[in-house]
Amino acid sequence: MHTLLILSRFARDYEALIESAHLPDLAITATGDPAQIGPDAAAFDLAFGEPALLRHLLPRLTAVRWIQSTWAGVEPLLDPVLRRDYVLTNARGVFGAQMSEYVFAYLLAYERKLFERRASQDAGRWDQTPPARLRGKTLGLLGVGTIGAALAATAKHFGMRVKGYTRASEDSADVDEYFHGPLADCAAALASDLDFLVSVMPDTAATRHVIGEALLRALPPRAIFVNPGRGGVVDERALAAALQEGRLAGAVLDVFEQEPLPPDHVFWRLPNVHITAHTAALSAPPDIAPLFVDNYRRLLRGEPLHYRVDFDRGY
Amino acid sequence: MHTLLILSRFARDYEALIESAHLPDLAITATGDPAQIGPDAAAFDLAFGEPALLRHLLPRLTAVRWIQSTWAGVEPLLDPVLRRDYVLTNARGVFGAQMSEYVFAYLLAYERKLFERRASQDAGRWDQTPPARLRGKTLGLLGVGTIGAALAATAKHFGMRVKGYTRASEDSADVDEYFHGPLADCAAALASDLDFLVSVMPDTAATRHVIGEALLRALPPRAIFVNPGRGGVVDERALAAALQEGRLAGAVLDVFEQEPLPPDHVFWRLPNVHITAHTAALSAPPDIAPLFVDNYRRLLRGEPLHYRVDFDRGY
Repeated sequence: MHTLLILSRFARDYEALIESAHLPDLAITATGDPAQIGPDAAAFDLAFGEPALLRHLLPRLTAVRWIQSTWAGVEPLLDPVLRRDYVLTNARGVFGAQMSEYVFAYLLAYERKLFERRASQDAGRWDQTPPARLRGKTLGLLGVGTIGAALAATAKHFGMRVKGYTRASEDSADVDEYFHGPLADCAAALASDLDFLVSVMPDTAATRHVIGEALLRALPPRAIFVNPGRGGVVDERALAAALQEGRLAGAVLDVFEQEPLPPDHVFWRLPNVHITAHTAALSAPPDIAPLFVDNYRRLLRGEPLHYRVDFDRGY
Repeated sequence: MHTLLILSRFARDYEALIESAHLPDLAITATGDPAQIGPDAAAFDLAFGEPALLRHLLPRLTAVRWIQSTWAGVEPLLDPVLRRDYVLTNARGVFGAQMSEYVFAYLLAYERKLFERRASQDAGRWDQTPPARLRGKTLGLLGVGTIGAALAATAKHFGMRVKGYTRASEDSADVDEYFHGPLADCAAALASDLDFLVSVMPDTAATRHVIGEALLRALPPRAIFVNPGRGGVVDERALAAALQEGRLAGAVLDVFEQEPLPPDHVFWRLPNVHITAHTAALSAPPDIAPLFVDNYRRLLRGEPLHYRVDFDRGY
């Protein structure tokens, strides 16, 4: 018998979805409030939920051997003061479609001048400024995992050229040119002809602030930077300076070093920045619950779990 | 020897593009101003340009045997008072990609709440309202020619279901369900479960005002209507009433019965309407010139020309 703690804002949804899978030998406790879990915390051998909630309970989950995160990002559980004597799996392979809708909503909005045209309309102006188009433009991807591959596929659908920076993998055939090694060494080759640069890199010791002065100076002034990934990869002062000095045409930012973005942050005052408040890809229970169900069946069969996090690498 | 009149706002571009094709036996006169053409109008056996410019010169182009339009819409040349004793070909097969960027810019803007989120940002608000998504939604197409087929392909890329209304053809495999016959007879079956209805129908006697009261009442109140096609197919009073009464969530309108849209038109005052001033798909000389070049070679070889317009059908 396994005992599962579901700790999530969507605890009831996840409980219903997992129960509907009729998994064998599984007792479920579901709550959205860590304070509801008393001394029986020590009884759970499995946990499923949001890393930000689980991290506070983790020291008391003494019997836990596997935690499935509902998020892609597991930073709250990577704090070196926390235990690492369990298997941590995260959510992967389910955000590509949402991310693609997010990124291309803004790329198309730029090309088609949606905000400028709306302003013309509000002023009663018949605005026939010609739009531009994605076809023939070049997209740079920082990170080509399942999300990056989904973005590359949509870019190809719209007739774009795609350049991809990854640690080592070259799994997506929709990427025309791959770059590896330290970003500083390939910044010019990667960035100098881009129309759009999109970061979907994880937040790790190796990626911290890599989107900084050098990379931003390598981009042409026409470029738009889009970050639906992680805030920690961006040097926000360098990005703000590039935007203020016209070295970059604009930025679409979903994630930040501090969230919510502080009211006095310069990004709120820059007209060429779009702020989307960490909504690019939401963990919807119908997408995420199957990850737990599949991994639980693997556990019962003694197979390796999918999407295991390497605590040292950070993803 | 053939003598070609290029009559276009982009006369110089077209002349350069056609000259670069080194077509045999072709003398070219290029201008953007019909008044520049004197008695030698009677010498041209070929013409290439904008229908709105060509229509005024047509009675004097007495030797013309073929006109290639730079536009898809050739309504100015369909006036029954005008001659029809020549072959008229229009621009087709080149607007699909642009139209797809236009339509999906607005579909994604709706799902991702781009304008609402911008308003939140302008108010300094960290707005985490969850976005919606295209995946799983249903798109209805009125007209499935080359443009409709391009829209269907993009809809499929984003995981949508596609319903298509056409006169008879069923050429696109990206359309899940086809509808034919009078629109009034299939309005409910076509429209009752749509999230988006997009019209790319030509403006003909048969399509005039077919998007009217009956079809609009068949749409669910959540639906968005997008018209990058022709203004004449819409009963604008019925559309305005549906939008004002909340029977339709919104409309994205590129074309109108009268253009520019008159300053006192109700559409300017409806908050749930986007007006894009006939810019959805522009005839770019690098896209259009090859249509003339290809058809000219066909003419020399005695082959039938591509994209011949049926004067009675109207497209």
